[in-house]
Amino acid sequence: MTFKDAAAAIAAAGRRMDAMGWVPATAGNISVLLGADRMAITRSGRHKGMLAPADVMLVDGQGASLEPGARPSYETLLHCGIYRRFPGTGAVVHGHSVANTVLSRRAGAEIRLAGFELLKAFPGGPTHDTEVAVPVLDNDQDIPRLQAVLDALWNRTSDAPPGYIIRGHGVYVWGADMAAAMTRLEALEFMLLCHLEEGRHTR
Amino acid sequence: MTFKDAAAAIAAAGRRMDAMGWVPATAGNISVLLGADRMAITRSGRHKGMLAPADVMLVDGQGASLEPGARPSYETLLHCGIYRRFPGTGAVVHGHSVANTVLSRRAGAEIRLAGFELLKAFPGGPTHDTEVAVPVLDNDQDIPRLQAVLDALWNRTSDAPPGYIIRGHGVYVWGADMAAAMTRLEALEFMLLCHLEEGRHTR
Amino acid sequence: MTFKDAAAAIAAAGRRMDAMGWVPATAGNISVLLGADRMAITRSGRHKGMLAPADVMLVDGQGASLEPGARPSYETLLHCGIYRRFPGTGAVVHGHSVANTVLSRRAGAEIRLAGFELLKAFPGGPTHDTEVAVPVLDNDQDIPRLQAVLDALWNRTSDAPPGYIIRGHGVYVWGADMAAAMTRLEALEFMLLCHLEEGRHTR
Amino acid sequence: MTFKDAAAAIAAAGRRMDAMGWVPATAGNISVLLGADRMAITRSGRHKGMLAPADVMLVDGQGASLEPGARPSYETLLHCGIYRRFPGTGAVVHGHSVANTVLSRRAGAEIRLAGFELLKAFPGGPTHDTEVAVPVLDNDQDIPRLQAVLDALWNRTSDAPPGYIIRGHGVYVWGADMAAAMTRLEALEFMLLCHLEEGRHTR
Repeated sequence: MTFKDAAAAIAAAGRRMDAMGWVPATAGNISVLLGADRMAITRSGRHKGMLAPADVMLVDGQGASLEPGARPSYETLLHCGIYRRFPGTGAVVHGHSVANTVLSRRAGAEIRLAGFELLKAFPGGPTHDTEVAVPVLDNDQDIPRLQAVLDALWNRTSDAPPGYIIRGHGVYVWGADMAAAMTRLEALEFMLLCHLEEGRHTR
Repeated sequence: MTFKDAAAAIAAAGRRMDAMGWVPATAGNISVLLGADRMAITRSGRHKGMLAPADVMLVDGQGASLEPGARPSYETLLHCGIYRRFPGTGAVVHGHSVANTVLSRRAGAEIRLAGFELLKAFPGGPTHDTEVAVPVLDNDQDIPRLQAVLDALWNRTSDAPPGYIIRGHGVYVWGADMAAAMTRLEALEFMLLCHLEEGRHTR
Repeated sequence: MTFKDAAAAIAAAGRRMDAMGWVPATAGNISVLLGADRMAITRSGRHKGMLAPADVMLVDGQGASLEPGARPSYETLLHCGIYRRFPGTGAVVHGHSVANTVLSRRAGAEIRLAGFELLKAFPGGPTHDTEVAVPVLDNDQDIPRLQAVLDALWNRTSDAPPGYIIRGHGVYVWGADMAAAMTRLEALEFMLLCHLEEGRHTR
Repeated sequence: MTFKDAAAAIAAAGRRMDAMGWVPATAGNISVLLGADRMAITRSGRHKGMLAPADVMLVDGQGASLEPGARPSYETLLHCGIYRRFPGTGAVVHGHSVANTVLSRRAGAEIRLAGFELLKAFPGGPTHDTEVAVPVLDNDQDIPRLQAVLDALWNRTSDAPPGYIIRGHGVYVWGADMAAAMTRLEALEFMLLCHLEEGRHTR
């Protein structure tokens, strides 16, 4: 895939996420892997729902900018951590929703989703057809430290689901390509909306 | 109707359903009857909100593919079951909404909707002007078995409503053509949203 | 205003109402007064969010069709009742929302809205700057009888607000022209959404 | 920036606010500073989601019209108060949301938002990374008096957040330019939606 195509796929994903309210206020980020040591990722401070090709930059496998003078978003390292851990990953999406924000703020170490047909589109874990435990990590401005917590979590988890939530700081979801990542994101956010609704008090 | 027109109608319906959030993560499916033994139906794994003509395939009355090498969605058999049971049906739509997912997960064998003017657009049953009982079936990965449960239900129901819900797995709605199916789907989903709201705890 | 312009204004209003979810399943209707005895109104059974010019018809001041063979929506008489009662009215809009449906189903004879700045855009009654009592009428398939109840209500109300709700059957709002009617509709629906939210149980 | 460019930026912001439901029924207003004594601002009574260039007018630093015969919105003085108080401000946006309306109606003198990553996009106060106190002012039809209350509040607040809410009458948010103002508005409204959700009663 060329950088131009990657930037277009990223912009299209950003528009869909924006239509759902998932990239408010320049939050969120989206990346596509272009090679062993090359990733296209959204620049910091740009509104992810209104991306132009110039709003996407190139970084290497360690998240260092391949563009002189440009500083990548500090969350770039979380994208690198995913590509490193899960070979075959081609795209990573990060967004904030009211559901993932509110649910993670009241959750412990995970959010369990069970009994949804849509779990088929967001698998993970030994009973992946019927239940998924989505990890919830405490927010941390020290990104390498946060990534270390993730790596330790993945070390002790077999069949980790393709996503995690940072408490009050949105969700990260990935897939083999952008379509797969977006499908998984939509599935997870739909189930979180249902979970949020089911937690509301009824008559 | 030609296959080309059917594919266009299916894509348009998919876009409206997507705008409502009813076809997340490649879930859902949409079909149009083209003849006694020919149906156009969405392919599995394609996002129903962004369908191209190539995302629609032809199957026969038993749900077998009329396209060499193409495997239909396993839910195709549910569409066949509807066309077989209700002659005059021209289109079937299947989608997931937060309302139909959450309500069916807490429901018993049916969801009763009463007193809505919109019942006029989603009729069924002896008191169809004032109340409808929407069947809720347990989810089942064995589709022929699920269809048998539906057929038994319809055998003992006079004036069945033109829809049913599979617990945690969305709604199936049908009509004489796509416009009729979509009208009924919109009416049902609107009433389910009201029903969901009325179940929330108030002061 | 020509019929062509009226049909265009009606279609544009329908699209905005549809974007808000206020005209589901061919429900709702929209009219524009063209003269002392001529009104353009949406045909029954057409989706009000996707109106073509052919989906609008002409009726006279009593709601009788001016188009040979065409039968107007039975709700046309409610539009006539408004134009007759409130000279200076140029447009009437009727839609269903989850808020107006759910709130009217649990309301008595009226819904009181107070303390909203948006009341400026939906006036009515002696304390119209600070509170409005929106009438809620029981639904009735006998439209002339329903209109008689409305006329009696308006006979005993000074400064009636420019709208009313039919229990479980949506809202009717009017104004000097389509822009005014839509402004009032948006104001009312916004306040109803706030009212609905304020009725939900909190911690 | 030319008046033409300012009007275009204002119209674009209005469309985004309208898509979010934040400018119902001609409510809301949007301005851009063009010079020490020149501001482009939306005219009163125009729908802020459907602005044409003619719907924007010029006023001076005291809010007096620079267009013969045109009367500015009375809320123009609140925009002037912000530009005067916060040099470097280039744009001000004012909208109504269900969240800011409902929350301000039940709040005291402020709404505290804490623990959201999005606080980075809506800073203010000594602990601005972790908590912001958004001022809530009582509504007042006497705008100069309301502005005096704001000035007194700002006199005793260090690091005031770039926004405030008028009880039942929407939010005012500002920034160095339109993009900054809109980013802050989106951040605030997102956090208010989360705050509203967290106040709902749960099981």
